[in-house]
Amino acid sequence: MEISSFKEIVKKYKVIFFDSYGVLRNYKGIFPNIPEMFTMLESCGIKSFLLTNDASRSPKELAAKFQESGITAFSEDKVISSGMLAREYICRKISGGTIVYLGTESSAQYIQINGVKTISIHDVDLDKNDDYQLLVLLDDEGYDWNRDLSKTVNLLRRYTMPIIVANSDTTYPLSKDKVAIATGGVANLLESLVQKVFIRFGKPDSQMYSFAFDHIQQFGSIEKKDILMVGDTLQTDILGGNKFGIDTCLVLSGNTLPKNVELEIASTGIIPNYICNSVVS
Amino acid sequence: MEISSFKEIVKKYKVIFFDSYGVLRNYKGIFPNIPEMFTMLESCGIKSFLLTNDASRSPKELAAKFQESGITAFSEDKVISSGMLAREYICRKISGGTIVYLGTESSAQYIQINGVKTISIHDVDLDKNDDYQLLVLLDDEGYDWNRDLSKTVNLLRRYTMPIIVANSDTTYPLSKDKVAIATGGVANLLESLVQKVFIRFGKPDSQMYSFAFDHIQQFGSIEKKDILMVGDTLQTDILGGNKFGIDTCLVLSGNTLPKNVELEIASTGIIPNYICNSVVS
Amino acid sequence: MEISSFKEIVKKYKVIFFDSYGVLRNYKGIFPNIPEMFTMLESCGIKSFLLTNDASRSPKELAAKFQESGITAFSEDKVISSGMLAREYICRKISGGTIVYLGTESSAQYIQINGVKTISIHDVDLDKNDDYQLLVLLDDEGYDWNRDLSKTVNLLRRYTMPIIVANSDTTYPLSKDKVAIATGGVANLLESLVQKVFIRFGKPDSQMYSFAFDHIQQFGSIEKKDILMVGDTLQTDILGGNKFGIDTCLVLSGNTLPKNVELEIASTGIIPNYICNSVVS
Amino acid sequence: MEISSFKEIVKKYKVIFFDSYGVLRNYKGIFPNIPEMFTMLESCGIKSFLLTNDASRSPKELAAKFQESGITAFSEDKVISSGMLAREYICRKISGGTIVYLGTESSAQYIQINGVKTISIHDVDLDKNDDYQLLVLLDDEGYDWNRDLSKTVNLLRRYTMPIIVANSDTTYPLSKDKVAIATGGVANLLESLVQKVFIRFGKPDSQMYSFAFDHIQQFGSIEKKDILMVGDTLQTDILGGNKFGIDTCLVLSGNTLPKNVELEIASTGIIPNYICNSVVS
Repeated sequence: MEISSFKEIVKKYKVIFFDSYGVLRNYKGIFPNIPEMFTMLESCGIKSFLLTNDASRSPKELAAKFQESGITAFSEDKVISSGMLAREYICRKISGGTIVYLGTESSAQYIQINGVKTISIHDVDLDKNDDYQLLVLLDDEGYDWNRDLSKTVNLLRRYTMPIIVANSDTTYPLSKDKVAIATGGVANLLESLVQKVFIRFGKPDSQMYSFAFDHIQQFGSIEKKDILMVGDTLQTDILGGNKFGIDTCLVLSGNTLPKNVELEIASTGIIPNYICNSVVS
Repeated sequence: MEISSFKEIVKKYKVIFFDSYGVLRNYKGIFPNIPEMFTMLESCGIKSFLLTNDASRSPKELAAKFQESGITAFSEDKVISSGMLAREYICRKISGGTIVYLGTESSAQYIQINGVKTISIHDVDLDKNDDYQLLVLLDDEGYDWNRDLSKTVNLLRRYTMPIIVANSDTTYPLSKDKVAIATGGVANLLESLVQKVFIRFGKPDSQMYSFAFDHIQQFGSIEKKDILMVGDTLQTDILGGNKFGIDTCLVLSGNTLPKNVELEIASTGIIPNYICNSVVS
Repeated sequence: MEISSFKEIVKKYKVIFFDSYGVLRNYKGIFPNIPEMFTMLESCGIKSFLLTNDASRSPKELAAKFQESGITAFSEDKVISSGMLAREYICRKISGGTIVYLGTESSAQYIQINGVKTISIHDVDLDKNDDYQLLVLLDDEGYDWNRDLSKTVNLLRRYTMPIIVANSDTTYPLSKDKVAIATGGVANLLESLVQKVFIRFGKPDSQMYSFAFDHIQQFGSIEKKDILMVGDTLQTDILGGNKFGIDTCLVLSGNTLPKNVELEIASTGIIPNYICNSVVS
Repeated sequence: MEISSFKEIVKKYKVIFFDSYGVLRNYKGIFPNIPEMFTMLESCGIKSFLLTNDASRSPKELAAKFQESGITAFSEDKVISSGMLAREYICRKISGGTIVYLGTESSAQYIQINGVKTISIHDVDLDKNDDYQLLVLLDDEGYDWNRDLSKTVNLLRRYTMPIIVANSDTTYPLSKDKVAIATGGVANLLESLVQKVFIRFGKPDSQMYSFAFDHIQQFGSIEKKDILMVGDTLQTDILGGNKFGIDTCLVLSGNTLPKNVELEIASTGIIPNYICNSVVS
């Protein structure tokens, strides 16, 4: 297994898709030397985009968070989130009635559209009928799991509606050695109980990559062979990139530990084009 | 599809295994005419046992609940619960260290054994090492799902220990048209996140039936052909009884609705020996 | 549940994506009055495309089959198949070595690319090393299941390579009341045995829809709201169309029987925009 | 991780349950020094039983195979196979009509009972009605997978009947580094296509252990604490033994490789009481 230098391989591409956690930052904040890496990319004329499974805030808010940390590469139009796909789905498929969401009030702001009401599962009154059109899982916060997940099951037993999962990650890192259950984990629980088909957005689903690919065409005509997906997780970043037909680079600064990387590649059959220690290697 | 009279078919057997919810009682309490049914069985010399997926209280407490409702058929020694299997497992396999449980303090009393500490997941301090020997899922109450399920995931990432599920039901009826997520549902969530093998006790697993079969031999020598399992759920009561090799009777007073019964039998391939409207039919 | 007239609703769209089996034809051949339906669409300026999970022959051969039956709507450039996605994947990701395929020799012709060898699993010699780069499941014919599926398992135990499934349908209709196991079924078996991640192409995966969407832009600028997906299967045609954000029409001339349609929609939560008896209704 | 000497630990028990492949023999035949090991056990008064997932031949034939190799410990009454459970199920639950089997003619002989016809899936004529009472998967040989597995799917779509899997192993070792797909693998394929509940017999299911436990009581009163299950596979031998409440010993002479054992125990949470290099260590 060959370890490549990120600085070398990156020069073959015009566009880099960056995953966020485990690649550019961790729980403590931005990794060292990341701003310099972006300066290097810019000086080479390489464009950077953020590709993140996150539906808890808008691209604007996600961009602002990076700018606070001194990284200016990600203006709002350089951020592509799974929440954007959820919003697009809602705009195209829902034109009235009520959307029930699992998430914080703040996460729900981004899915507001004209003529459609939104209500938190926390505030749903099951004994009062309503014109429910959609259930959307936005975030793992903003509701009481003991009480409101059972309420969700009962809602789905009574009403027929599509169910979308705006972030399919099952856990997220809380600290170096602790994780928290994320929206995708909540979706697994509900799906095992109600036997309906949940529509999941975000990596590794190819819709995320198609969306990103279409989105970046505004910055100049880009072909698939010009793009490199950089991520720390085989099952999301690398699998999705491979399937979509772009090159992929696994970095060992996050989920995938150096000592396990060979075994994980062999046991999953998910093979990145490159393996690098980090994006500053 | 033929509907039989329970009073008629029951006379062919020496022992009846009764499921509880949906067969003898619902959320409002004991069904009408149940005490008379038990009087009839006793007068015919037919013995009754309760076979229940319940690990939230001891057989003694389960028996007391029935006696409060005027049903004397179920003395403590006539109650077989999935919690008893969990307790047997613990007695045989754990002889020291600490057991972590998900459940109420009261549910944990029944699994106390000499020389083994028990601690609620709620009180576990992940930053303090302990000699964890087992995780047991006892009940869906007694802990905060938002906080303590993530804590459980982190516990299982850090320590290697067996995980047992003392009640594998995924939901339980809360009212006529509402359910609540039960211990088995919580187990599904955790299992999808940690990728370990969870050991599930309770119907339809055959260990529940073997345990019951051995247990009843103290009341006289009984063969499998002498036993009838009566339940309202194809996937637990009937499937488990069929597999164990005893006769089975589905009643339509609970989970399985009369209008769906033919479709459900055809689509699952789980075929009871008899179908009755209720145990008082 | 409202049944719409296909002739009426179709006029709201500029482009129609047609599924093949159960929509335009069945085992006996093309349904009655289908050529007239296409004449009507053409006279209204509505463009038709075929969207099919088929990797057993090239788009050219698929087009020829329709032309033999008197349907001229589908020239080669109007056919989009899951096999085209498999081919695109191979062109983008494989540039040397050997591809092992499960399928007929004829199905393998379409995935030939310069500099890459192809070999049927039937001809693989496990005791001889080779530079295996990919396993692709093309068709359910062309190999001996008893012998060659075990050989496939052993190949995947020994070599690390991506595995792609060029048609994810699990069964296909053989006659009015008989089905045959298809490539997706074979994939399920292998995946349950080797525990690797299989990459599935074809409906309901959104990549099929993105690919089609990009493909049709050569015929004039088309927006998602201008497209209607017409199919007979909720789990593939309708689910995929809904997720991609185009309108969907379920026809009751194939997999979904009129008597079951309400129940199936309620139990899956997959809701088409329209339901029509057939495309000639 | 401590490696124990089998000769030492075995002395704490009155009864040993031996798995066959990977413990006593492999593809080449019986391991060296096995007959001497059994002589030692006999001289200590320790009783040996064979616990095997095998439904391709009767206990008598299984016993004969060991006797041919010079091992006399397993007379017919010392052999417990998953096929015996299938036979018991049939005797208890089926009393007429026709049983369809997947397997060789020879495997079907063991499930013959008075008044019940048996027919191979190979000979079933789907266009002729029959009184089908059961489908049983006995062996991976004796039928054509390409043709007869599709026929099985069509049979199960047309008739409602229970389906039992008489051996739930998904693969078996063919040679040192090759496996073949076994009956449990075929069951996985069919189950993914027909969505019915398949009843699986054999380790790790606890019914196998209950059956064995009851069976051995004829050789003297034995308690669970007196029994040691010895096997080479965590997911079957050890998991099942742990759940049933008997002690377990993993040997590293078969499926579980010495270099992987720690990782496999940690990742599955299946923990044997002892680990030994082999039964002659």
